[in-house]
Amino acid sequence: MKIKVYATPALIQEDLADATTIVIDALRMTTVASVAMANGCAGIKAAEDVDAARLLAAEAGALLGGERGALPIDGFDFGNSPLSYTKGAVAGKRLVMTTSNGTRAIAAAWASRRVLLGAFVNAGAAAVAVREEPLLCIVCAGTLGAFTLEDALAAGAILDRLEGFGVPVEPDDMGIACGLLYAKARQDLHAVLSRTAHYRRLQSLGMMEDLRFCLSEDTVTAVPERMADGWFA
Amino acid sequence: MKIKVYATPALIQEDLADATTIVIDALRMTTVASVAMANGCAGIKAAEDVDAARLLAAEAGALLGGERGALPIDGFDFGNSPLSYTKGAVAGKRLVMTTSNGTRAIAAAWASRRVLLGAFVNAGAAAVAVREEPLLCIVCAGTLGAFTLEDALAAGAILDRLEGFGVPVEPDDMGIACGLLYAKARQDLHAVLSRTAHYRRLQSLGMMEDLRFCLSEDTVTAVPERMADGWFA
Repeated sequence: MKIKVYATPALIQEDLADATTIVIDALRMTTVASVAMANGCAGIKAAEDVDAARLLAAEAGALLGGERGALPIDGFDFGNSPLSYTKGAVAGKRLVMTTSNGTRAIAAAWASRRVLLGAFVNAGAAAVAVREEPLLCIVCAGTLGAFTLEDALAAGAILDRLEGFGVPVEPDDMGIACGLLYAKARQDLHAVLSRTAHYRRLQSLGMMEDLRFCLSEDTVTAVPERMADGWFA
Repeated sequence: MKIKVYATPALIQEDLADATTIVIDALRMTTVASVAMANGCAGIKAAEDVDAARLLAAEAGALLGGERGALPIDGFDFGNSPLSYTKGAVAGKRLVMTTSNGTRAIAAAWASRRVLLGAFVNAGAAAVAVREEPLLCIVCAGTLGAFTLEDALAAGAILDRLEGFGVPVEPDDMGIACGLLYAKARQDLHAVLSRTAHYRRLQSLGMMEDLRFCLSEDTVTAVPERMADGWFA
């Protein structure tokens, strides 16, 4: 399996039409989406801005979730904490999300043959979902156009699971880097990530429970994947 | 010292005017430039294309060096092998270079207050040259717009030397990643990099001596820096 990892969406140079692509925004959008799906959410759609999200949710009778600057959006049903997306809150309902980085990364990956959402919480399940593919792309969302370490580590976790399944992987340079980074950091993701700006911002906002949840590995088996109607399910 | 590392020139988002910036194209341009300088080269200028390089060299009475697709350019005095830039060949002479990636990275860094060229061969010397700066940017050249591991590892080597000198560093996410990658790979850079496309391409072209030279650490003390006239010296 050829594997290409993009450190941010801006680095995508190739036509992705033949690729199966996993989008990672581990803190927190793709974690949220995976957890919502695991808790029975009937479908998730990403909207690029708040107005589009409101319109889409109204049309679809969907719940609204997301953040701007890591904080909840006025009038939305949920912020961007995976802890809010409980079975009681999301089972059987559709969800429209908009976030600062994850939704842009999904848009950048859209031309791919398959688009899936991955994170630490579903790293093993994401690897299972793509293990037969000849070409896997992984798009790290980053933060406001800049590289973020947590997404690279989550990409490394998915590569680790693929290798664990015996899939022969041929990663590009960024894929090799993600594998090395994960091997170095996996013993204590919090120790490594607590040096980064994004982790510290969430910590300073009192979101330690979110951080613990988002950095737990293989806790759900749901892998949101774009369906023919454009919704993730 | 705040440290920002750009995985490729395309990821530079900030105005660099207040920054001191080290450009890294470890395989091979910034290695070549450091070695030429160590061997007495009187000045180096980077030209973005072959025609501009010829014109500039003719005007300045300079030697011509560089590559396209890792191979020498017709009519140039040197290719991109650091082994060619001997004392006998370059001492007291000026040199105009054009390469696929390094020269573009230098152009992207140009607005910086100071611009220096770094590599494995002068990692320690580069760290010495910037150790008093409040803001260090490191621009990894990459290859044709894509991230390359060797440049990230060389950035990690420079961070390692700064920390070794007791400089309190505050790296961004990519800087932290480079430090972790270098810590993981430093025992055997060849073992790690022999998995990458760029290393393999140079290997397949019979350039093992170049690779050994370029991945040797702290073998020269020259650090090319842009002077007021736009030449590196």
